[in-house]
Amino acid sequence: MVMKLSFSPLSPFARKVRIAAIELGLIDQIELVPAQVVPGTANDAYVKQINPLKKLPALTLDSGEVIVDSFVIAEYLDELGGGGRLIPASGPAKWRVRSEHSLLQGITDSMLLCRYESAVRPEPYRWHAWYDDHWARVWAGWQRFEQHGDTLTRPLDLAQIALVCSLGYADLRFADCGWRKAFPKLDAFHDKMMQRPSVAATVPPT
Amino acid sequence: MVMKLSFSPLSPFARKVRIAAIELGLIDQIELVPAQVVPGTANDAYVKQINPLKKLPALTLDSGEVIVDSFVIAEYLDELGGGGRLIPASGPAKWRVRSEHSLLQGITDSMLLCRYESAVRPEPYRWHAWYDDHWARVWAGWQRFEQHGDTLTRPLDLAQIALVCSLGYADLRFADCGWRKAFPKLDAFHDKMMQRPSVAATVPPT
Repeated sequence: MVMKLSFSPLSPFARKVRIAAIELGLIDQIELVPAQVVPGTANDAYVKQINPLKKLPALTLDSGEVIVDSFVIAEYLDELGGGGRLIPASGPAKWRVRSEHSLLQGITDSMLLCRYESAVRPEPYRWHAWYDDHWARVWAGWQRFEQHGDTLTRPLDLAQIALVCSLGYADLRFADCGWRKAFPKLDAFHDKMMQRPSVAATVPPT
Repeated sequence: MVMKLSFSPLSPFARKVRIAAIELGLIDQIELVPAQVVPGTANDAYVKQINPLKKLPALTLDSGEVIVDSFVIAEYLDELGGGGRLIPASGPAKWRVRSEHSLLQGITDSMLLCRYESAVRPEPYRWHAWYDDHWARVWAGWQRFEQHGDTLTRPLDLAQIALVCSLGYADLRFADCGWRKAFPKLDAFHDKMMQRPSVAATVPPT
């Protein structure tokens, strides 16, 4: 079986799936297909053939069926890899990892909205209150993980992968935001995660 | 057990959870707690105690643990209700319903971005290309469901609930968009869904 992953090396959501695929031993079964999606710029072929939402990543199966979004793709790969390896299948951890992952999805969504506000939207149309509101969500979200140590120390799971991808995206797009100083535990967690080849190999190129 | 659902009667994501809870026979175990979240307006108590992302809905359990987002809450309730009732637990339907639900989540996210752009953001800062881009995603997403009839005719599942909530949100916020004329199959589907007490009882108040 060969699956096709529509991705960009800059997408934190696609990076999460790539890390998961490497950790699950499935990356050799996945062909990486670059795609470009920018708000305000059309990509009709991608919208028609892959994802009407013009979002990354998307996984196209042998059958032609397309799976979105990054969480569902990761869950699909986790099941292919035996199940319950990166996403716990039962018990309180089942809901904790899923809920934390959703928080991190929201953190990363807000970072992208900040990026679009400050770099894609023409300057006269930028609204500082929007940027500040979403950046405050990012900060409050990270703070929750800084203060709840369990996420940072348990065996590898998808919430941890999502967390390291959110921090890596900060390094790429908000290099001066100062997250390392504000959140020393997240800094140590990031260092530890970077020792994994899956995480180190997928750092977005600057 | 009593659970608390932070919600707004206007939120399409909270409506999806309320419909799911009614269909699963669990609504009597859930206390509905109103909360207000608007971009550019602070709600520190909600951010600190419930959800750092300032998003709805959130489910607070007896234990104090908070579950986000709407999909994870729906999955949690589905498991409480026996499992596999609104979200298939195995087979191709498992991935089809999850992937379709993600598409509908993205459609609804884009509608909210359009709403914020046209009604919350101050007029001088509005960027038409942003609005048009996200509205095109909404339209392309609905078109996919109009053309792939299986979603509209199978037994009730969470993707169908998400679809009816996206259409209901269009009636609330984009009443002149013309979705009924453009998508006659979705119109018939919406009529059929409205015969369910769960769907009819949760229509957002105008």
